[in-house]
Amino acid sequence: MEIPPFQRIAVVGAGLIGGSVLLAGSRRHLAASFACWSRSTASQRLLTELGIGEVFTRVEDCVRGADLVVIATPVDKMAETFATIGPALSPGALVTDAGSVKAAVLEAARGLPASVTFIGAHPMAGSEKAGAAHASEHLYAGRACFITPSGKEPRAAVERITAFWQGLGCVTTECTAARHDEIVAAISHVPHAAASALMLAVADQPGFSPAAAGSGLRDATRIAAGEENLWLGILLANASHVSEGLRAVEARLAELRTALERGDAPEVNRLLAAARIARQSLDRPA
Amino acid sequence: MEIPPFQRIAVVGAGLIGGSVLLAGSRRHLAASFACWSRSTASQRLLTELGIGEVFTRVEDCVRGADLVVIATPVDKMAETFATIGPALSPGALVTDAGSVKAAVLEAARGLPASVTFIGAHPMAGSEKAGAAHASEHLYAGRACFITPSGKEPRAAVERITAFWQGLGCVTTECTAARHDEIVAAISHVPHAAASALMLAVADQPGFSPAAAGSGLRDATRIAAGEENLWLGILLANASHVSEGLRAVEARLAELRTALERGDAPEVNRLLAAARIARQSLDRPA
Repeated sequence: MEIPPFQRIAVVGAGLIGGSVLLAGSRRHLAASFACWSRSTASQRLLTELGIGEVFTRVEDCVRGADLVVIATPVDKMAETFATIGPALSPGALVTDAGSVKAAVLEAARGLPASVTFIGAHPMAGSEKAGAAHASEHLYAGRACFITPSGKEPRAAVERITAFWQGLGCVTTECTAARHDEIVAAISHVPHAAASALMLAVADQPGFSPAAAGSGLRDATRIAAGEENLWLGILLANASHVSEGLRAVEARLAELRTALERGDAPEVNRLLAAARIARQSLDRPA
Repeated sequence: MEIPPFQRIAVVGAGLIGGSVLLAGSRRHLAASFACWSRSTASQRLLTELGIGEVFTRVEDCVRGADLVVIATPVDKMAETFATIGPALSPGALVTDAGSVKAAVLEAARGLPASVTFIGAHPMAGSEKAGAAHASEHLYAGRACFITPSGKEPRAAVERITAFWQGLGCVTTECTAARHDEIVAAISHVPHAAASALMLAVADQPGFSPAAAGSGLRDATRIAAGEENLWLGILLANASHVSEGLRAVEARLAELRTALERGDAPEVNRLLAAARIARQSLDRPA
């Protein structure tokens, strides 16, 4: 049997994302032992039943002695989490996270002791379902994962963190935290906010009839079913990029609407065709 | 063997929707014989290979002798189709359609001879894939279908048309054409236009990165891959309802965006939570 790359991996915030790190990390033998903590007592109970690692009720106890700490708490809790675990971290430990924004988390990570190395990451995996009950060892298989070093870390540390996320099944890409935030605004945060706005508007229409709704409306609004507590933090932490993107959606809606209002068939056709072509680019292999 | 409810069903515009009428109608023995016409030579060839009914290259020939004619051409072609087939229709024939708007089609149906009875319908089934090649005998199974009589037709005719769509597997609902158009604006046309606007806006963002896009963006914009030629006609024929709905989407986007811009966490949270609750209502059994 191969020697695992880490002695002990601690997962802080073992819900859907963190729980899947535990399941995939254990199955792929990425550490000799695992530790985890979850704020939710339901997840704590479930994690104990799973028996993958030691389950702690105090987050400081969870990280003690770990050479890799994976933070999977909501992004608006990161600063608080870093402050709490800081004194308990082993000198030389690597710390990574799975947060959906990276500039704000990098900023928060300044609160960590100088004796540890933080390298942010963002695996593009998830679900509108939250909690360890929905965790899966396959969650990361083939998924894109951003690695966002600041450029000041030892290169060997960046490589170990990259290998860790690859070890879970991810396909990694390295970029700055700022570039990451710009990308995820376009492909994730703006679509999420737009799906929420669409759902609110549709639900207000006099013709809204859930029983008649087909897969079109369901698919277009599926992500709006996500937990608001999670998304609130994400959208606020990436507000300037998201705001810029939402302005663009508003402008495109107004463009299409005014073309419809004046019965401008060639213009409506041009906009719908451009949207179809752009949408088809998402299905083309990169 | 039961006597089929119709002698001969003619399907005008045998693509995805019309082709599925043929497949399901034949499998469920709804007529003693079938006739069909498609503008597309690829669909004509395919329909000939299927061998379900006589395939005609002239639409007038297709409808001759049929006691039920099903029009499945794009909605902006309906007036033209009615004018062309009118003289060839058998007196007493029933005519129905599968168009996504109903008031405009009812208006167009005034061009039919007084000796036939038109009763509009809209089965809520489809796909972003067009053409007879994607037709399926299961397309209508369990799907909602609006039946939109004007109120002036013989009740027996309404009942025969209702039984026909039920015979294909649909679950029917009767309402006026105007009410239908209000409903589908909310649950289908506004989401379609909004998905197109979102796709256009996202594709313009500096962070747009198709390779990193996950299922969230893909699902939210899936319907934007639909054929613009089909949707152009639908959106223009239902422009006033769609315009009203798009204004509401723009207003909700601006509400969410300005809350984000001023960092108003309780307000962002309130909007996201309301959207989540509305979205969850779509998954609740009616």
